[in-house]
Amino acid sequence: MSVLVIGSVAFDTIETPFDKAERCLGGSASYISLASSYFTGAVRLVGVVGGDFPKKAITMFNDHNIDIEGLEIVKSGKTFHWHGKYHFDMNMRDTLSTELNVFADFNPRIPQSYKACKYVCLGNMDPDLQRGVLSQVEKPRLIVCDTMNFWIESKYDELMQTLKLVDVIIINDAEARELTKEHSLIKAGKKILTLGPKFVIVKKGEHGALLFTKDSLFSAPAYPLEDVFDPTGAGDTFAGGFIGWLAKTDDFSTENMRRAVIYGSVMASYTVEKFGLERLKDLSWIEINDRFREFKRLASFEEI
Amino acid sequence: MSVLVIGSVAFDTIETPFDKAERCLGGSASYISLASSYFTGAVRLVGVVGGDFPKKAITMFNDHNIDIEGLEIVKSGKTFHWHGKYHFDMNMRDTLSTELNVFADFNPRIPQSYKACKYVCLGNMDPDLQRGVLSQVEKPRLIVCDTMNFWIESKYDELMQTLKLVDVIIINDAEARELTKEHSLIKAGKKILTLGPKFVIVKKGEHGALLFTKDSLFSAPAYPLEDVFDPTGAGDTFAGGFIGWLAKTDDFSTENMRRAVIYGSVMASYTVEKFGLERLKDLSWIEINDRFREFKRLASFEEI
Repeated sequence: MSVLVIGSVAFDTIETPFDKAERCLGGSASYISLASSYFTGAVRLVGVVGGDFPKKAITMFNDHNIDIEGLEIVKSGKTFHWHGKYHFDMNMRDTLSTELNVFADFNPRIPQSYKACKYVCLGNMDPDLQRGVLSQVEKPRLIVCDTMNFWIESKYDELMQTLKLVDVIIINDAEARELTKEHSLIKAGKKILTLGPKFVIVKKGEHGALLFTKDSLFSAPAYPLEDVFDPTGAGDTFAGGFIGWLAKTDDFSTENMRRAVIYGSVMASYTVEKFGLERLKDLSWIEINDRFREFKRLASFEEI
Repeated sequence: MSVLVIGSVAFDTIETPFDKAERCLGGSASYISLASSYFTGAVRLVGVVGGDFPKKAITMFNDHNIDIEGLEIVKSGKTFHWHGKYHFDMNMRDTLSTELNVFADFNPRIPQSYKACKYVCLGNMDPDLQRGVLSQVEKPRLIVCDTMNFWIESKYDELMQTLKLVDVIIINDAEARELTKEHSLIKAGKKILTLGPKFVIVKKGEHGALLFTKDSLFSAPAYPLEDVFDPTGAGDTFAGGFIGWLAKTDDFSTENMRRAVIYGSVMASYTVEKFGLERLKDLSWIEINDRFREFKRLASFEEI
């Protein structure tokens, strides 16, 4: 099945305590699309870039069979540029600058050829725009949504409206607490289930992820990386691997949703090994499945 | 196989945001012994209490087949009393008072009848005393050791000596980071393996636990409690369930060590449901195995 991805396409300048990379290709839609592309041959990207967007980035999308009919190129404008610096504790970062440029006026228009996509992934953006996307698509089978603290704080009511329309929300632990005013992640996850989504995924960074459904909870381990080289895009990559697996298998059973969480974790564990999309763009299916089995070994135990 | 437990026996006055309990029976040796007693019929306790130690506590130990020949009663003294208050975030607590009383002069003497115990659990105490215990026992098959930040900070070199002699160290995430000066728990756990122990368990509270061996890592989930009623003794209970299972099965294979971590987690998940030892003292084997299977359901996923 095909996956429709809506989000930012950006340049990221990334500083870590160990190295620096200037103007790497990034943005939520890039990570989500690329991660999904390993699972399904039909990824349709919607985003906006400026006249400075390089040909080699277009080539990279093409090489991964990512359809960019929906990537608007504003010739007179500049592509979104984010500049951030990670602390020694890589869970912390400072944004040094955010130049929204053409992304400031982003109003996603879904091309006719995309409208029948059965899987929709709404990258982190204004919840009004997310609903705007949903008003343009025809009966998707699954809608996955990301968000962030900025929208929880500045557009809470609008976010609540969006949550009513989505099937899966992917959120991190701090955001889940902020959204629900519950310190316990278990309470927070269950509370979010009452807001609309049938599936709630709470990402916990180095502690893995939780998948809440109405009648079950899945605790997924984190891949035991000794060093995270660059955490940028890990959350978006997770979302891409997750929806990619579901689009490939078209099965929403609890067992398969759990597999999707692990495939999301697998993809994210590769992304953080190098800057930006460097690692994600050159993965093999063997590497993906090897790591899936590593997750399995990491978490397995048996009754005697 | 029999388990030798050395640690504190205390009264705890516990305040949580929701309730308060005065002078409950507690102390590391009480929790470890009681948790172990569900797995093996032969638990031998070594500790010290004052003349104020109540008969009903003795009866409780007897009822669980915990041998208290090694529990010294100093008639003229008073039992160790700890008073603490938990924050709304129950991972945080303030110690309001610590009256060590007879525990200040604790110098564990191992009764002759205990010396052949094959499983030894050294509760959190001065690492010099922990080594003193080991000098009195005859070739145990497994030595499990707990410690805390206080000893890492005040008796680092002595703790290093103790670590060389033990098989398993159980430590929490903050302590593992402090001991190794590594932020990454993966690096920290691996580093502790080079200090002596063949097995390192890093407890992560609401995020579960990690078991490191020379050639494998196990990530155990946490039981998804919505409310922790009283976290006191959870770590000691974990150690007791862990060593109890191993004493019952006498099998140090990786698979069985993983099971032991889950049984430790099961016991701890019950302890925190009520004040002090209230929940732990009335468990059934059916409850223990039911929860083991809940842990299994929580963590399981399969390749397609």
